[in-house]
Amino acid sequence: MRDHGGDLDRARAAHGPGDWLDLSTGINAAPYPVGPLPPDAWCALPTRETLARLEAAARSAYAAAPEAPCVALAGAQAAIQLVPRLAPPGAARVVTPTYNEHAGALEAQGWRVAPVETAEDLRGATLGVVVNPNNPDGRRWPPETLMAVARDVGLLVVDESFADTAPELSLLPRLGAAGGRIVVLRSFGKFFGLAGLRLGFALGDAEAVARLRALAGPWAVSGPAAAVGTAALGDAAWQAATRARLAGDAQRLDRIAARAGWRGVGGTALFRTYDTGDAAAAQARLATARIWSRVFPYSDRWLRLGLPGDAAGWRRLERALAP
Amino acid sequence: MRDHGGDLDRARAAHGPGDWLDLSTGINAAPYPVGPLPPDAWCALPTRETLARLEAAARSAYAAAPEAPCVALAGAQAAIQLVPRLAPPGAARVVTPTYNEHAGALEAQGWRVAPVETAEDLRGATLGVVVNPNNPDGRRWPPETLMAVARDVGLLVVDESFADTAPELSLLPRLGAAGGRIVVLRSFGKFFGLAGLRLGFALGDAEAVARLRALAGPWAVSGPAAAVGTAALGDAAWQAATRARLAGDAQRLDRIAARAGWRGVGGTALFRTYDTGDAAAAQARLATARIWSRVFPYSDRWLRLGLPGDAAGWRRLERALAP
Repeated sequence: MRDHGGDLDRARAAHGPGDWLDLSTGINAAPYPVGPLPPDAWCALPTRETLARLEAAARSAYAAAPEAPCVALAGAQAAIQLVPRLAPPGAARVVTPTYNEHAGALEAQGWRVAPVETAEDLRGATLGVVVNPNNPDGRRWPPETLMAVARDVGLLVVDESFADTAPELSLLPRLGAAGGRIVVLRSFGKFFGLAGLRLGFALGDAEAVARLRALAGPWAVSGPAAAVGTAALGDAAWQAATRARLAGDAQRLDRIAARAGWRGVGGTALFRTYDTGDAAAAQARLATARIWSRVFPYSDRWLRLGLPGDAAGWRRLERALAP
Repeated sequence: MRDHGGDLDRARAAHGPGDWLDLSTGINAAPYPVGPLPPDAWCALPTRETLARLEAAARSAYAAAPEAPCVALAGAQAAIQLVPRLAPPGAARVVTPTYNEHAGALEAQGWRVAPVETAEDLRGATLGVVVNPNNPDGRRWPPETLMAVARDVGLLVVDESFADTAPELSLLPRLGAAGGRIVVLRSFGKFFGLAGLRLGFALGDAEAVARLRALAGPWAVSGPAAAVGTAALGDAAWQAATRARLAGDAQRLDRIAARAGWRGVGGTALFRTYDTGDAAAAQARLATARIWSRVFPYSDRWLRLGLPGDAAGWRRLERALAP
């Protein structure tokens, strides 16, 4: 398994046990509240109707057209595992640095992957992947740019796993005007703070979405994920309040980091990446306060932090980084 | 999507709305009790340690060796979707009639599938599939037979989705002695009555299990599935009591069916298949009492019933089938 945030086993192995505060992911730490579920969510196979309601809720929350092809999957990661099968393995390009599973899944399934620097470099590719906004550096591409690039790419995969807090970047409201083949991936668990549920969506090109549905097979999404996902995606008030809170919290995190002498690299309202000068030292400093962070194999300076979800978490982080 | 049991949308479309009793599946209708889950099960990505505990609980419940290769997946169906990728597409054989997703998934992914009548007919196949005990006719193959057959099959897939109530049939206690490449699939949701959770396992051949793990990707199983699955698979007392109850209930169902003039074809303690003489008429008769059953495209006589989970369900079924 490739290296990821969110694995506290690794923090404990490296730095010892304790009550760890996990800021190594971009998962909202103040989750959508999960109430009691109807027994059928646990006991019965999700019906076609259940899944259709879930997918309709996703289209609506993501401002996609009501008729936009959409398939619910067990997380954006499940889509990433299947994307390599949307075309015969050949040469793919991925805008890099980014989430390592895109290149990893493609290479594991026989693709040659060329890392490229920007979305414009995807022109001419059979399969191109861009994460928008990007993880971990927060780079953003205007939707018009990606729509134009898509015309020159066999299949453009746009991973919008962190677009919930930047809806103006999403291609989904504009897909009807697409001149190229585009598949947009959405993550449910990050913004809604329910990564354990395993829920995500792929929308866009009809043929690709149908193929993803067939490859995932029936009942690819659990009953609890369908029940909670339908409720959460339909709760526009919670979404608006959460967007506002996260935007404020991201600024608060930037102020704390600035006082520690870290320079902002970029990020989204769910995570911030900083140039710390010495990533290993910065991670070790946080680890002594039992705060887990994310560093990257390709940079010895960058450190990524998610946002604390409560007052105790913020105090702990402020103390750990106090000059 | 291929035709399946468990889709009440279809019952309602054909026979109208109402309070349907779904006996169209082989899912235990008296499920393992789901208590409140720790918040991390919903919010956090399952850690390696969480998944290792789940897989250890599965090995133990299934009487596999502690070191047996084992991967947790989002249902036996998730394994069925990936099995076609364990070898380059070629000629496969499936012992038929059986669960239609095996041939369906193989054919959708480029395999030619030859239906065969019995496990012995798998000898010489590149990839062979047998369901033991079989669905829907309950045919059983002694483990020794399948172990011997495996020596003459490139990869033998044994779907033990209904073996929880017939543990004496399982290959898992014997895998260490396997002379051929065997992958055993297990379903969590049927016996534990929690099909909505999406949980299953593949055990056996080390290379195949590692490949399934890689293809499924990280976090293939949800946090709720890991939490509930670990508890349920570790609860030997509940499992023993449930096996005993289901065995008695299966006999009760057979008596009701016999009074209706139906002849037993076979089954397991989770479902019974009957020769009704006229499957469409039998299904329609049950449907007037809002009881949903399963019929099969390849037989105009067979009807399959799951077991009611409570006294009200039994009364309803007895009344519907009273001579």
